Amino acid sequence: MGPARHPGRVRPFEARIVRRVRGSALGAAEEDALAAEEPLEIRLNGRAVVVTMRTPGDDEELALGFLANEGVLRAGARPRRVRLLADPVFAPKGNIADVEADEGDVVRAPSERTFHATSACGVCGQASLETVERAFAPVTATLRVAASALEALPARMRKDQAVFDRTGGLHAAALFAPDGALLALREDVGRHNAVDKVTGWALLAGRLPLASAVLVVSGRAGFEVVQKAVASGIPVVAAVGAPSSLAADLAERAGVTLVGFLREGAFNVYAHAERVVA
Amino acid sequence: MGPARHPGRVRPFEARIVRRVRGSALGAAEEDALAAEEPLEIRLNGRAVVVTMRTPGDDEELALGFLANEGVLRAGARPRRVRLLADPVFAPKGNIADVEADEGDVVRAPSERTFHATSACGVCGQASLETVERAFAPVTATLRVAASALEALPARMRKDQAVFDRTGGLHAAALFAPDGALLALREDVGRHNAVDKVTGWALLAGRLPLASAVLVVSGRAGFEVVQKAVASGIPVVAAVGAPSSLAADLAERAGVTLVGFLREGAFNVYAHAERVVA
Repeated sequence: MGPARHPGRVRPFEARIVRRVRGSALGAAEEDALAAEEPLEIRLNGRAVVVTMRTPGDDEELALGFLANEGVLRAGARPRRVRLLADPVFAPKGNIADVEADEGDVVRAPSERTFHATSACGVCGQASLETVERAFAPVTATLRVAASALEALPARMRKDQAVFDRTGGLHAAALFAPDGALLALREDVGRHNAVDKVTGWALLAGRLPLASAVLVVSGRAGFEVVQKAVASGIPVVAAVGAPSSLAADLAERAGVTLVGFLREGAFNVYAHAERVVA
Repeated sequence: MGPARHPGRVRPFEARIVRRVRGSALGAAEEDALAAEEPLEIRLNGRAVVVTMRTPGDDEELALGFLANEGVLRAGARPRRVRLLADPVFAPKGNIADVEADEGDVVRAPSERTFHATSACGVCGQASLETVERAFAPVTATLRVAASALEALPARMRKDQAVFDRTGGLHAAALFAPDGALLALREDVGRHNAVDKVTGWALLAGRLPLASAVLVVSGRAGFEVVQKAVASGIPVVAAVGAPSSLAADLAERAGVTLVGFLREGAFNVYAHAERVVA
């Protein structure tokens, strides 16, 4: 299940020195585990597309998911190769993910224009307002999800958040089948990266578009999370935290069911409630 | 205190329709307040620099703080004018902040290169790894802060988070004097925007660099928060949540005291503990 891992390269947390203060007393220096954050340069066919600050691990999925969610690679793309490269000066740790894809799989070339129009944050970093919302087909999947199944997902997700448990500092994104079975869960210091990683998992598994999946995010749902869900064809997005106004607006317009404040026994539906059944 | 507001333009939360699910029962449609999220295009002397997704309000501060923290405007800049403009097609709500500044205040022109090297996320959206860390002078301020004063800041901050109270969905950044007096607090769906807004407040108040201020952020502290603090000359950064490994590394290197998991009676120090006194 899922793509090959590179266990030697995965550094989801790193040891750093901490001094704990308790009741105004500064303790001795000791070791603590912090959520790892490092830049990753994503290349397509040898050309740099973007840099994102991410938690190392699942970098191939992150690169592929980013390119798919930004509309650069088509959903059904079968990339020829994804390599993790090093640069002696700028990326000694191998923080370059180089994706090789056939021209037929590249829907939109990552041109100068694309640099502006995309960032790992989904929308931040663009140079002008004209390019904020990209054109993806609305989600029309007729999926139905039981309210009780939805309510069980955060607890199921929390069980697999290994790095969060160690550091208290990571976002998580997870894909579930409508019956509540976990398909993939990824963690990252950037919520947008965690979403791109599960999309990359789906692309590698040949499961894009994700017409019968539920995407759960551990925190809040902003515009960029819903935009990525639309790109992946995901019909139901559920956030443990609050949605933003623009997330609700885009979900309504793009045919996505948007759930917020998801917990055991209660949640709110902000768009397309018809997919939620008692 | 602080710059003039445009009360008519500030929309920190917006009403949307929600259906609440309690115990599997889907309730009737009712109104709910969501944290407002809208794109803002930042222009310098008529030229588009970046688009950021932000919570409307304090947009002049956001534009100025972003340009200062990205090293485009110098810390002592006295901008000639900041206007909020509308575009009939792309920004009917006036989501364009146009900054006019003298050439002498523009340290680095927002060239094509700058578009790539900067984004509202601090580092995401760059086109290559070479430009992730920008060159700012290390912070050398000899400020000392009492542990007991630090521990009191989150409660003080929470009291002023008006929009969070309504929506449960906003980050906050606040500047405090070393004795715990609140200087400025701003809220936004993007943590990086909240930090840029308080920087913009300081620029307008003629208080940059902020050599005797403590920056508190409501959530986690990633690389970009520390990078913005270095740009503003802030000697102490304290996060209510966890820091990342790269945030701790940059803080150590740039002379910034980095506090994490700040709460009443306890916190952790990840770099330059010498500024924290019992």
